[in-house]
Amino acid sequence: MNIVILAAGKGKRMHSDLPKVLHPLAGRPLLAHVIDTARSLSPSRLVVVVGHGAQQVRTAVAADDVAFAEQTEQLGTGHAVMQALPLLDPAQPTLVLYGDVPLTTPAALAGLVAAAGAERFGILTVEMSDPTGYGRIVRDAAGSIVRIVEQKDASEAERAIGEINTGIIVCPTGHLQRWLATLGNDNAQGEYYLTDTVARAAADGVEIVSAQPAALWETLGVNSKVQLAELERIHQRNLAQRLLEAGVTLLDPARIDVRGELSCGRDVVIDVGCVFEGRVHLGDGVQVGAHCVIRDSVVDAGARLQPFCHLEGAHVGPAGRIGPYARLRPGAELGEDVHIGNFVEVKNSRIAAHSKANHLAYVGDATVGSRVNIGAGTITCNYDGVNKHRTVIEDDVFIGSDTQLVAPVTIRRGATIGAGTTLTKEAPADKLTLSRAKQMTLDAWQRPVKLPKP
Amino acid sequence: MNIVILAAGKGKRMHSDLPKVLHPLAGRPLLAHVIDTARSLSPSRLVVVVGHGAQQVRTAVAADDVAFAEQTEQLGTGHAVMQALPLLDPAQPTLVLYGDVPLTTPAALAGLVAAAGAERFGILTVEMSDPTGYGRIVRDAAGSIVRIVEQKDASEAERAIGEINTGIIVCPTGHLQRWLATLGNDNAQGEYYLTDTVARAAADGVEIVSAQPAALWETLGVNSKVQLAELERIHQRNLAQRLLEAGVTLLDPARIDVRGELSCGRDVVIDVGCVFEGRVHLGDGVQVGAHCVIRDSVVDAGARLQPFCHLEGAHVGPAGRIGPYARLRPGAELGEDVHIGNFVEVKNSRIAAHSKANHLAYVGDATVGSRVNIGAGTITCNYDGVNKHRTVIEDDVFIGSDTQLVAPVTIRRGATIGAGTTLTKEAPADKLTLSRAKQMTLDAWQRPVKLPKP
Amino acid sequence: MNIVILAAGKGKRMHSDLPKVLHPLAGRPLLAHVIDTARSLSPSRLVVVVGHGAQQVRTAVAADDVAFAEQTEQLGTGHAVMQALPLLDPAQPTLVLYGDVPLTTPAALAGLVAAAGAERFGILTVEMSDPTGYGRIVRDAAGSIVRIVEQKDASEAERAIGEINTGIIVCPTGHLQRWLATLGNDNAQGEYYLTDTVARAAADGVEIVSAQPAALWETLGVNSKVQLAELERIHQRNLAQRLLEAGVTLLDPARIDVRGELSCGRDVVIDVGCVFEGRVHLGDGVQVGAHCVIRDSVVDAGARLQPFCHLEGAHVGPAGRIGPYARLRPGAELGEDVHIGNFVEVKNSRIAAHSKANHLAYVGDATVGSRVNIGAGTITCNYDGVNKHRTVIEDDVFIGSDTQLVAPVTIRRGATIGAGTTLTKEAPADKLTLSRAKQMTLDAWQRPVKLPKP
Repeated sequence: MNIVILAAGKGKRMHSDLPKVLHPLAGRPLLAHVIDTARSLSPSRLVVVVGHGAQQVRTAVAADDVAFAEQTEQLGTGHAVMQALPLLDPAQPTLVLYGDVPLTTPAALAGLVAAAGAERFGILTVEMSDPTGYGRIVRDAAGSIVRIVEQKDASEAERAIGEINTGIIVCPTGHLQRWLATLGNDNAQGEYYLTDTVARAAADGVEIVSAQPAALWETLGVNSKVQLAELERIHQRNLAQRLLEAGVTLLDPARIDVRGELSCGRDVVIDVGCVFEGRVHLGDGVQVGAHCVIRDSVVDAGARLQPFCHLEGAHVGPAGRIGPYARLRPGAELGEDVHIGNFVEVKNSRIAAHSKANHLAYVGDATVGSRVNIGAGTITCNYDGVNKHRTVIEDDVFIGSDTQLVAPVTIRRGATIGAGTTLTKEAPADKLTLSRAKQMTLDAWQRPVKLPKP
Repeated sequence: MNIVILAAGKGKRMHSDLPKVLHPLAGRPLLAHVIDTARSLSPSRLVVVVGHGAQQVRTAVAADDVAFAEQTEQLGTGHAVMQALPLLDPAQPTLVLYGDVPLTTPAALAGLVAAAGAERFGILTVEMSDPTGYGRIVRDAAGSIVRIVEQKDASEAERAIGEINTGIIVCPTGHLQRWLATLGNDNAQGEYYLTDTVARAAADGVEIVSAQPAALWETLGVNSKVQLAELERIHQRNLAQRLLEAGVTLLDPARIDVRGELSCGRDVVIDVGCVFEGRVHLGDGVQVGAHCVIRDSVVDAGARLQPFCHLEGAHVGPAGRIGPYARLRPGAELGEDVHIGNFVEVKNSRIAAHSKANHLAYVGDATVGSRVNIGAGTITCNYDGVNKHRTVIEDDVFIGSDTQLVAPVTIRRGATIGAGTTLTKEAPADKLTLSRAKQMTLDAWQRPVKLPKP
Repeated sequence: MNIVILAAGKGKRMHSDLPKVLHPLAGRPLLAHVIDTARSLSPSRLVVVVGHGAQQVRTAVAADDVAFAEQTEQLGTGHAVMQALPLLDPAQPTLVLYGDVPLTTPAALAGLVAAAGAERFGILTVEMSDPTGYGRIVRDAAGSIVRIVEQKDASEAERAIGEINTGIIVCPTGHLQRWLATLGNDNAQGEYYLTDTVARAAADGVEIVSAQPAALWETLGVNSKVQLAELERIHQRNLAQRLLEAGVTLLDPARIDVRGELSCGRDVVIDVGCVFEGRVHLGDGVQVGAHCVIRDSVVDAGARLQPFCHLEGAHVGPAGRIGPYARLRPGAELGEDVHIGNFVEVKNSRIAAHSKANHLAYVGDATVGSRVNIGAGTITCNYDGVNKHRTVIEDDVFIGSDTQLVAPVTIRRGATIGAGTTLTKEAPADKLTLSRAKQMTLDAWQRPVKLPKP
């Protein structure tokens, strides 16, 4: 089978500089969703017809199995498909999809393709309670489709028809080629309509069949930010439903956002307001507190994220205790039972099992051993304004509060660092190292008093 | 035209010490919404009838174009309008609104006023699927309104009428004056009802006309916190719809709250859970991450706020990178491409282009130049317990981590401050300034051991 | 009355290791909700029939007034009730409830019990618009219940019946005992069905009566995470409605989660996205900002929490000012007008009236007096790796920024601590105490330059 995806439209009603089909749904361009669906049907040729923002669209979805045809003028859907014809296999039927209709399921399309087979003209149709504005599917007494009638041309009886044309069709490519060549543009818009091929099929005695998707939303398109938001919500509701069916506990299915791929083990609990982006895996028994934002991260079994955590490119080890208000940045690699507490940032650092940084700290470009205690306010001074340097903290180290570790620097096994120390040289094992000025009291000093107003 | 707004009710079912009409909807008193709508109709006189909490209500909405009449006893809507009569222009018709019906649109009222003209009695009516409890609009065979019948007095046929009286009326002021003078209070509540003027109009042969709002919610009033929450949601849904129609991308229109005026450039994206208060402007291409709270701030083009930011009275320059967990307080003025990172607070400080404070810092009462790097844990010690002092940091300064800048203090151009420094005097240009005790190791020191239980 | 709660099911469709009845709804096991409801009816005997995860279930809901019967094989609801029979008072009727049907109200059950009295068989029934799959209530011409017919056995006329059996029944215990003994398991599942006792009652001429709950959701059960999420939302919507009716202002009733007991004074305002767990009390006029998470805490009158606060086991005094991003941990006891600001953590500390810790601080195991100012970046070094020690700060102390208080340590009344001090010994009253190295500038020092790539 050939698949043609129409993706040349500008989307003026989007009020945006971005080509319409590149607007993201669940974090990925509308068109990428359609291409994914197309791929799941294993087409022999997959052609995307680009036009507005052609180069930007090509770049965004470029892949080995995707060919592009360019429609330089927007002269209608029939004209768009014509541009793709040279790239199609004439021996196979052609399925036409739309880059701004992102939620059609593979099942619905497979049903349509099966209904049409090699010889018939297939239309994806859907029942609407209010079909106003859509092309109605007119059938004869035997139930066979005889034509599509547009709103403005429909008789009163035809306007009462609830079954409408979604625009998604499949038909033998040889026929398609011939019919497209004969299309006229004698209409208000001066466009060549793909829909007009239905009349050609009827005239040629080609049988016209239909298939229906399981849900109306499979056929909805995006022409405005209002519609984009509606489809985003439908898609998120579907994703949440899938997570629930797989056994994930969602405290509120209407308040989780998944933009990418979220895989979960058994007995995972996700509280309200969480956002997942990219590839995220949550292991068995993981609990994610309210209002966490997690991107491209792995959280191992039994770990618990408290509210307001922000993870990106991080790996939380088994039974970790994270947050609230913990930020794990790319390269944060935490071992088993590591605790990262409030107002702590970890970046590009490996922290081994049972170590803790519970309060107000910045751990960057560090290698931290096991059973290390990083005191409140500890900061790895990893940046000298030009280069980044590493801090090495070996096992069983205890770092007092408000300590600065001026990298490159190493703290040997079992060392203790006194509170408030600026550590610039290696701290030897098992000993207390510190830098500290003597505490003194100034007897004569007076507290400031309120300055008189001038 | 005269407009009278009835705002004397107590709102007992609100269970609140605040007068009902002062409860906020989208951050502003219910009554303020009604006054705004009234103003949009350019009335010659605008009178608010106050009663419960009269002084508080007057203070909350005082303005040059608003006159107040006081209803000291709550004797019904007719009685309330009577108190306003001396302040009205008898030559103009009078429109009666309600301080607890906040969402009526100017369009609906303009339609009513136009329908009534100078001579007729106009009633804003609405169709309800379940009109139980409301006064029904009774029309004669010709479709003319002949009277309003209350629920308890309605025949079975009248109870089937779905068109109800919203209470919003407009009529010639001379008539109104005369009719109100003849109202009785011979009813269960012992009150004088404005609605009874309809019967007077019919008796006097004054034509009674109606107009309908576009939506039922335009006529809903607030008598309880349940209803207040319902109207808040309707209003927020409408505001979100308007943003979407203007081209703003909202990840979830049901999870944005706008309490004030939010203006947006092109290609603005707002993630879930954000709250906007006061006047906020987001420039072209601004992205606001999940769960941000922004009040009275301006964010320039291309800036990006990561999740959990809290802005108030701040200005983020073009292409700024803010958050996550950044707090910008009043007077934070950031230049182009300024980065404010996690757990950083900025207050009353100007920070020039390309400067960064990426981690755990407090920048208060400071003037910061361009290309400055403020290290993690840096704190401006701006307060001596009585007075606030300024910190001046010139261009190209590099401040090491965990540094205290004891204001008033100046750091000259290109200076470097060593980590952990307590800076109390000026730091000269282009040199390293620091305060640091010598690092030492205590060989004899022993780590604390677990104290035996007593 | 006896009450039997069936709680032996595995809940395979939950995809969980936790027994089904222990899955939490609003933070408490499903079964705990049912037991609470049962208790409100003051039964003389309360028996829970356990099976899958029996020990875990017993432990979770163990109480003096709860007896347990064990159903070792899952042979149906009739068989389950049989296991409870030896523990019941045969002189009282028995009400049968389900551990996975958590939202039935006491009112609905009281209505059922009253309808049945001592002699009759009572069934809780409910009208469904689509009753497919449920057992229909078949009545004779006089309206008396004659039998329950299951979906598969129902005639077309019977399938049109909308009144269905909820499974909740009450009947005289002697009868029940007798009927259960005669039940067969000659059905597809090979199970003994409690429903079959209805036919026995009819055969014995025992009058069968019904009662209906106020809402359909009272009868919904949990068999999957989808249903669990649905009931969670229904329950949360009900809780929010109750708060609104009590006069609490909720900015969005669909975005508050209460898992436990939230009590509120007058004029409390709760912004969007807040989560309450355990026992929380909010005093008169308390305002809770967006996205706060509060567990087992008391917030006194007039206090204001800004967005992103996280409280657990804390007490905020009257007129407190907390957040944004403040974390109060167990044992945080704040006096009147205490200010805890952004990125500040307080744990196991008493802070007296008018004291402030506004920025980036960790206050743990401390006793803080009145009118104390704790500077930005201040840290109580309460932990030496083994033991926790206390910090005592008396009234009117001013602590400069970035100070470490190495506990055990005391700061006497009126003392001032210089910025950047490491305080290891007592600071005397009314004087300035500090530890500080001399500020110096290195003339010869050169800034690092970009390292050449290798």
